[in-house]
Parts: sequence; C-alpha cells; structure tokens
Amino acid sequence: MNFREIADARQSCRSYDAGREVEREKLTRILESARLAPSACNGQPYFITVCRGETAKSVADACTGMGMNKFASEAPILLVISEMPYNKSAALGSKLKGNDYRSIDIGIVTAYITAEATAQGLSTCILGWFDDKRIRELCGIDRPVRLVVTLGYAKADDKLRNKKRKDLSELVSEK
Amino acid sequence: MNFREIADARQSCRSYDAGREVEREKLTRILESARLAPSACNGQPYFITVCRGETAKSVADACTGMGMNKFASEAPILLVISEMPYNKSAALGSKLKGNDYRSIDIGIVTAYITAEATAQGLSTCILGWFDDKRIRELCGIDRPVRLVVTLGYAKADDKLRNKKRKDLSELVSEK
Repeated sequence: MNFREIADARQSCRSYDAGREVEREKLTRILESARLAPSACNGQPYFITVCRGETAKSVADACTGMGMNKFASEAPILLVISEMPYNKSAALGSKLKGNDYRSIDIGIVTAYITAEATAQGLSTCILGWFDDKRIRELCGIDRPVRLVVTLGYAKADDKLRNKKRKDLSELVSEK
Repeated sequence: MNFREIADARQSCRSYDAGREVEREKLTRILESARLAPSACNGQPYFITVCRGETAKSVADACTGMGMNKFASEAPILLVISEMPYNKSAALGSKLKGNDYRSIDIGIVTAYITAEATAQGLSTCILGWFDDKRIRELCGIDRPVRLVVTLGYAKADDKLRNKKRKDLSELVSEK
C-alpha cells in the first residue's frame, strides 16, 4: 500500500474479530516501524507495553467508563503508550519555547504504529480515555500513560467509512 | 513505497536544493493526506500555512537563533503548523483526563505530512525551535505556532544516514 492508501484505509475500528490472533511477525513489524519514528532531539520519550490475554482484558476494562470504549475488550492486543523522560536538549527547548514536544512525539509514534498496522491488514483505534493509575498498576509502569491503541483484525462486516474532515480550504492557507 | 520504506527513508534533511521547486501536485498530495489524519474526537485542531518565496525566507529566519536551523532558508517551502481550538468533546476529555490531546494530534498530522512527502521523493525537517510571535505576524495567524516543517528536494549529496534509535528491548515490553 502506498501512503495515501494507508491514510484512506486507516479508521478507528470498534469491531474486532476476538478469535483471530495477530501474527507475531506483524506485531514485530509494527514495533520496528514505530522505532524509526522521529522525535524532538531524537529523545524518543515513550515506551510501549504490549498487552495480550488477561492483561489486555484488564487494560480494556480500564478504558471503559461513561459508556466509552466497550469494544476494546474484543481486541486481542492493546498497546499502552506511556511517556518517558525527555533528554536534556529536548527538555531545555521545551522549557524555553513553552512547547509540549513530548506529546507531539507521542502523536508521531502513534501515527507510525497505526500506519504500519494498516499496511499489515490490521485495524486499530487510538484511545485517549482510560484510568491511568489502574493501567500503570496492570503494566508495572511508573510513568503516565498517554494513549492506548487497540490492535487486531476487524470483523468482516466492519466496512470502510467515509472520513469526515475539514475541507482543505479550512485546513490550509498559502502565503 | 511501503510504510517501512517510508519510515527508513524519512530523515531530517538539512541540505535542500534551493533551485528546485516542489511541484504543485506533490504539495497538494501531501496536504490531502494530512487532511486524512485522525485526531481526538475528530477535532482536527490544527491549521497549515504553506509559505513560499519571501514569506518562506522570513519564516526561515524566524526559525534561526542560537545557531539553530540555518539550513531552513534553503527550503523552497515551509509549512507552519499552528493550533486551532479543540472541539467541545476533546476539550472536555482533555480536561477530565489531564491529557494534551491537541499536541498529540499535531504530532499525528505532522507524521502524515512527512510520510507523504517522503513517498513523493521530497525531504523534510520538523522544527520545534522558532519565534512564535514573529511567525504569527508573518503568516497572519492569531493562534500559537506549534511546528514548522521544511519541505523541498534534498541536494544530491544528502545521503541516507543510519538512524540511531533505542533498541526494541528499551522501547517495548510485553505483558
């Protein structure tokens, strides 16, 4: 798939085939591509915890509440993306410029994860609603969780939807 | 190019062929792919200002200082990525969860821009060091600038470098 095909095909999947496992080589490929993501001062200020089985079920449960994300328990894998410290130069730049580079970097690596997953025929959903404290306990991590990504094969009836986006004229201007 | 090839080929380019323009159709393709990026609650909380010519030179100048980013003036295009307001549901979620979704979304859209540019044979560098106030004046935008992306063709002698990244064992664990 070329990148446009990936961008078109990627959509938030909320209907997983719970019985279909993700092949180890596809998971590895996704993580290897994520590793290549750029970050401010190459700080790579993130960590990925791959959750399967009972841990995945418990993390999925920690993503529910207020009617949110009930589908997450069907996904065979949940990727927990937590933050890691800045390196010194990124920390200094962030302070001087008042810019949250770490969150930007976490966005970039998540785009890489979801793009490579799509290229591998897998489906994802990026979750920003979760119980940080509980997931930290489940995963044994001591730094804030920033995103959770569900990963698996979509059910056969989960069709590609039209994307609703701003028109280019609302998104872009030229100077 | 498949996504791994894109991830391998994308690198921060600091040596542009100043005389080689970016074709209009390639720029459009990049912006169209950026438009497809996912964001929290589909809020798309960003705006892209495409700067060319004298505006690009002035924006490049506003990215220098303390020895940084001198190469930016060689790039024929600078993309200024500024933030836009959250939509209501993303704003509420961000407040309740203390998570900076907007910066994450800006990271995702920037990953889309640099990935599609790479697929089109173009080179980029993501700049986080710039004079926000001055770029706002130059671009006529009233909201904070978050990133500037240089865009153009690399000079022929700008070879692919090896990427220095954490080992997968430092980036990933399994639960």
